[in-house]
Amino acid sequence: MLKSVKNEKLAFACDYMKGALPEILDRLVSSNMISTIGYGEDDITESARNRIREACGCPKAAVELLMGGTQANAVMIDAFLQSYEGVIAARTGHISVHEAGAIEASGHKVLELPHESGKLLPDTVRRYLQDHFSDPTHPHMVKPGLIYISHPTEYGTLYSRDELREYREICDRYGLSLYVDGARLAYALACPENDVTLKDLAELCDAFYIGGTKCGALFGEAVVVPDPKRLPYLFTTIKQHGALLAKGRLLGIQFDEFFRDGLYLRAGIPAIHAADRIREALAAKGYRLCYGSPTNQVFFIMENRKLEEFGEHVEYSFWEKFDDEHTVIRLVTDWGTTEQVTEELIGIL
Amino acid sequence: MLKSVKNEKLAFACDYMKGALPEILDRLVSSNMISTIGYGEDDITESARNRIREACGCPKAAVELLMGGTQANAVMIDAFLQSYEGVIAARTGHISVHEAGAIEASGHKVLELPHESGKLLPDTVRRYLQDHFSDPTHPHMVKPGLIYISHPTEYGTLYSRDELREYREICDRYGLSLYVDGARLAYALACPENDVTLKDLAELCDAFYIGGTKCGALFGEAVVVPDPKRLPYLFTTIKQHGALLAKGRLLGIQFDEFFRDGLYLRAGIPAIHAADRIREALAAKGYRLCYGSPTNQVFFIMENRKLEEFGEHVEYSFWEKFDDEHTVIRLVTDWGTTEQVTEELIGIL
Amino acid sequence: MLKSVKNEKLAFACDYMKGALPEILDRLVSSNMISTIGYGEDDITESARNRIREACGCPKAAVELLMGGTQANAVMIDAFLQSYEGVIAARTGHISVHEAGAIEASGHKVLELPHESGKLLPDTVRRYLQDHFSDPTHPHMVKPGLIYISHPTEYGTLYSRDELREYREICDRYGLSLYVDGARLAYALACPENDVTLKDLAELCDAFYIGGTKCGALFGEAVVVPDPKRLPYLFTTIKQHGALLAKGRLLGIQFDEFFRDGLYLRAGIPAIHAADRIREALAAKGYRLCYGSPTNQVFFIMENRKLEEFGEHVEYSFWEKFDDEHTVIRLVTDWGTTEQVTEELIGIL
Amino acid sequence: MLKSVKNEKLAFACDYMKGALPEILDRLVSSNMISTIGYGEDDITESARNRIREACGCPKAAVELLMGGTQANAVMIDAFLQSYEGVIAARTGHISVHEAGAIEASGHKVLELPHESGKLLPDTVRRYLQDHFSDPTHPHMVKPGLIYISHPTEYGTLYSRDELREYREICDRYGLSLYVDGARLAYALACPENDVTLKDLAELCDAFYIGGTKCGALFGEAVVVPDPKRLPYLFTTIKQHGALLAKGRLLGIQFDEFFRDGLYLRAGIPAIHAADRIREALAAKGYRLCYGSPTNQVFFIMENRKLEEFGEHVEYSFWEKFDDEHTVIRLVTDWGTTEQVTEELIGIL
Repeated sequence: MLKSVKNEKLAFACDYMKGALPEILDRLVSSNMISTIGYGEDDITESARNRIREACGCPKAAVELLMGGTQANAVMIDAFLQSYEGVIAARTGHISVHEAGAIEASGHKVLELPHESGKLLPDTVRRYLQDHFSDPTHPHMVKPGLIYISHPTEYGTLYSRDELREYREICDRYGLSLYVDGARLAYALACPENDVTLKDLAELCDAFYIGGTKCGALFGEAVVVPDPKRLPYLFTTIKQHGALLAKGRLLGIQFDEFFRDGLYLRAGIPAIHAADRIREALAAKGYRLCYGSPTNQVFFIMENRKLEEFGEHVEYSFWEKFDDEHTVIRLVTDWGTTEQVTEELIGIL
Repeated sequence: MLKSVKNEKLAFACDYMKGALPEILDRLVSSNMISTIGYGEDDITESARNRIREACGCPKAAVELLMGGTQANAVMIDAFLQSYEGVIAARTGHISVHEAGAIEASGHKVLELPHESGKLLPDTVRRYLQDHFSDPTHPHMVKPGLIYISHPTEYGTLYSRDELREYREICDRYGLSLYVDGARLAYALACPENDVTLKDLAELCDAFYIGGTKCGALFGEAVVVPDPKRLPYLFTTIKQHGALLAKGRLLGIQFDEFFRDGLYLRAGIPAIHAADRIREALAAKGYRLCYGSPTNQVFFIMENRKLEEFGEHVEYSFWEKFDDEHTVIRLVTDWGTTEQVTEELIGIL
Repeated sequence: MLKSVKNEKLAFACDYMKGALPEILDRLVSSNMISTIGYGEDDITESARNRIREACGCPKAAVELLMGGTQANAVMIDAFLQSYEGVIAARTGHISVHEAGAIEASGHKVLELPHESGKLLPDTVRRYLQDHFSDPTHPHMVKPGLIYISHPTEYGTLYSRDELREYREICDRYGLSLYVDGARLAYALACPENDVTLKDLAELCDAFYIGGTKCGALFGEAVVVPDPKRLPYLFTTIKQHGALLAKGRLLGIQFDEFFRDGLYLRAGIPAIHAADRIREALAAKGYRLCYGSPTNQVFFIMENRKLEEFGEHVEYSFWEKFDDEHTVIRLVTDWGTTEQVTEELIGIL
Repeated sequence: MLKSVKNEKLAFACDYMKGALPEILDRLVSSNMISTIGYGEDDITESARNRIREACGCPKAAVELLMGGTQANAVMIDAFLQSYEGVIAARTGHISVHEAGAIEASGHKVLELPHESGKLLPDTVRRYLQDHFSDPTHPHMVKPGLIYISHPTEYGTLYSRDELREYREICDRYGLSLYVDGARLAYALACPENDVTLKDLAELCDAFYIGGTKCGALFGEAVVVPDPKRLPYLFTTIKQHGALLAKGRLLGIQFDEFFRDGLYLRAGIPAIHAADRIREALAAKGYRLCYGSPTNQVFFIMENRKLEEFGEHVEYSFWEKFDDEHTVIRLVTDWGTTEQVTEELIGIL
């Protein structure tokens, strides 16, 4: 998806291209020579867990800190599913396409359904489940066990709280679990169009993760399981997936800073401002925007001739061919995108 | 300079309790706001790869940077084995006991054999393979496909270059691969008793990893595959295991520093000095040392009554019960162990 | 898929409802008290293998006798794929829908593509592979390793020899293997529209299986691997999948009879005659036939009101809803379908 | 009546060398052209299930008919275990050695413990579990989830009802399940030394299987799960393992005959008589018997010089080398072993 990167270009290809927020980096430096017990059993990690529990309004939640998004998805989906179960996802979902079969590697089928602008609609899932369980041959088929959605989606779109409520009802009705991939959650939380809070996620999901890697951490994702009795051996599952960081405090430090005084809630704001400014400029210049993403990903159509020149100045992502003469491209802003670089970009459009 | 940070107890429980060497930390800080492409395709990671290739004398090697030891073992063993193959390991090997079944989770049996002081002896393996392939029922059994050893072992002991040569011959004879877990490799390389160099490993193994996490990095292990044609889709296997770090340069930076001017070869020296000093003191005070480890792990027997008091001042590892009144314990030194803290420890013994 | 079965009804629901051809049953009886070595190493099984090799024109082929179709697919797909590879199949393929995730259980993704009347068209696969390998993110995705088709398909349709040749070219170009599921192969071989012989399959495929269960055996499928060097440990893979029959000769006996004097080539003839007769009658009575199946499966549209009464006399399979007032149903003939029962059925239509 | 068929050698190598009991064969023949629904949903299979439920005294049990022992073990162990759990077994257990890694292929470690004459002693397991759960690193290890024993064992030895009770207590205390592999169960039930009934198994185990293949069926094993709520999707798990026989009635017929009027309880008697007679003769002739097996497997030591000649007349199994001049061999009797062939064998000893 990434075109070749040269540092003299404006970097809008993705949101994992820089290091970390200064608060996080400073804490890593100042704590460097402290000795702590490993595997996330240290006091710093425990403090991070407690702050996340508080921010989510679920004091008893299990909180586990993992190293990356594909890893978090693989661990959590495997943890929830029985061996005969599969996971429902949009055909465009990260687990469907871009995780090299990590879910299947743990023995589970991804049950892929159609999407709309990257969203898996509750109606689509409801119809699928009705059909599945009314098919007399369904015991010969993979049993759906979990619904996977991402918020924001791969296309930068958002679910509403009402849609999450619908999913909760669907899950309760059919005995499924609901899991939300929050790789870019900070950008949802910073977006005015979003009405889903951390507390809503904790109330409505069986598990979700709070993304760090794309949101200002060096790396790391915080998995939240509101009812820890659901997954009594989650620690062992993490270890089994090779997902247990020896110096667990490195993750603890990052999330302790994120949730010390609301840093995580502020982290996405510069990205949303920049993306809104870019969308505004694109509209003004007559570009056609795609998918209606209100978050830190901007999708629009560019003439191929124009694109060639554009690519000499800007790192962007190819998204898909629109027609023989046009391409859908993606620009991504992040926690570290400055006004200056945003205006430079707009000057080039 | 490393400044010792005051902990309540003297920290000798393991070698993953502190952060990172100052050279590594400084580079992480100075590069923080640079934008680079993800997934290890950046220039810094490429530089690290080239330096490792040079240090190992194998300019064509595949070098992949992973996040932890269990992860590196799970990825590499899965990458080498066919679905009907298993891996030979000492019954005490890390993959046999302390990886929560990560190898089995990818479908492969760990074929566990007896050890001597943590070492799997070439004779033990040779006899096992002779018996296996002469058993008429062997097609009903898991085919051995790879030999796993660690250098140093879980007991801090070392293989000699001659033993590695024996393993190479065994592997060539029976069509197996040889893989060396180098989680603590820096402590072998810094140890006078060791005669195995990085170039020997590259010459004799099908793959090995150069441990970072326990040797002065924040985290990270560098997998080396001297003949990359052996594993044409290793990148995809890494992704499939959830082991691909988005901001791959974080690993690149650490190994680029390790191999810029020989830092990795120096990193283990303070640990070996400290461990030798402790062994000397233990012997002088009449303690019985165990397993003959010459590296950064010190095993010895302590009376249970004495141990209780000792544990109030020192973080150590319980290893095993010796008899009703004695315990085998382990003390571990590391890249950041100072002379001062070593002498404090000795004062308590 | 099956409606409830009462023996007083005409049995057209599927082709695995009766026992075995008399030749096969007689041989099972006459050989009952002979003692033979187990696991398919006996002389009868070896004779069956040789006869199959001869019928397929590939004297060096590996031939393994397995117990059922899902099992044969799971074993063979796992045997061919590397751990990072997946299998391409029609979205309607048996492995995609009705094997309860058996392929994923061995760690491999089924890469599902659109079909036409149950057929996966070579053009569809060619386009998919072109897109896949030209996508710069493809190393993050499951590598396609094998193409799975069934002949006849789930919809009773057939591939032509030319289409198989196209598949061979596609596989050679992209480094994939070609595997044909022949659960109903006898019904293709007995069908005038079919131009694919056993020798063609052996020439063009990397593996295929000759279906027994649905074609007149009690149970059993014969897997043929023209070049046995492709799968050196196939026996162990079979055992690992729990697919090795202790009294292997039971399978040997059945396939030895099938290929003693061409029984397998004759076995499907009564089914094709009956199906043709039914299709003729349906057309004459104004029913609309579906999918163009020329083999032993007959698909057509029936009014729901008529269907209710029809179901009281005939065991059929519900296929799919056509509209609110019509249903697509399936009638299946087999090796034991008599003219008498066929005419009775026609009388009811 | 069973008529002995002339083989070149006397066949004592194993108990899966002949076809089936005449009652079973007759029923297969007489039912051949009946049409029934597939996948074990037919009336004959339901009748077999009910008879097994009655014989085991557990009217609500789930009873599933599978095709072979390795398959039954792989399905059931996978069905009981969570993804982070492993199965405890004797190092000599069938699942440990001779199933080609079928358990590991579904992601689970076999936790191998020492045996005594093929038996896994309750004390051994109790000590292992105490050590495991008191080890502070146990969350880094595979969690034991199930105890696997076979009755009779691989060495023909038997567990007592008291030992099964001990296992029940151990399982209840540590939250494990108990599973008994009954591949040769008919030979235990026919043995005077045995005090374990089908009802005991149903009372004390979480699941067990009643072996058919080695006990007079053509093939087939009946899995019994006394409390079906334990495994709500067992049918799907069976399908996922490729273990669902399309013409399920073939298994139904065999077990319906076994449990129609006590045939299963009588089936092993000729084997035990023959084995006792052989043991008696061996003792009289001064051979040294091994392991104390009272069932249909006879283990004893023969001089290598004698063995060479013996092997020209008798098919036996090599068990293990005793010393440079002696070998432990195994003779196996079965449901079809006649007095005549037994006396012929004794004449040769």
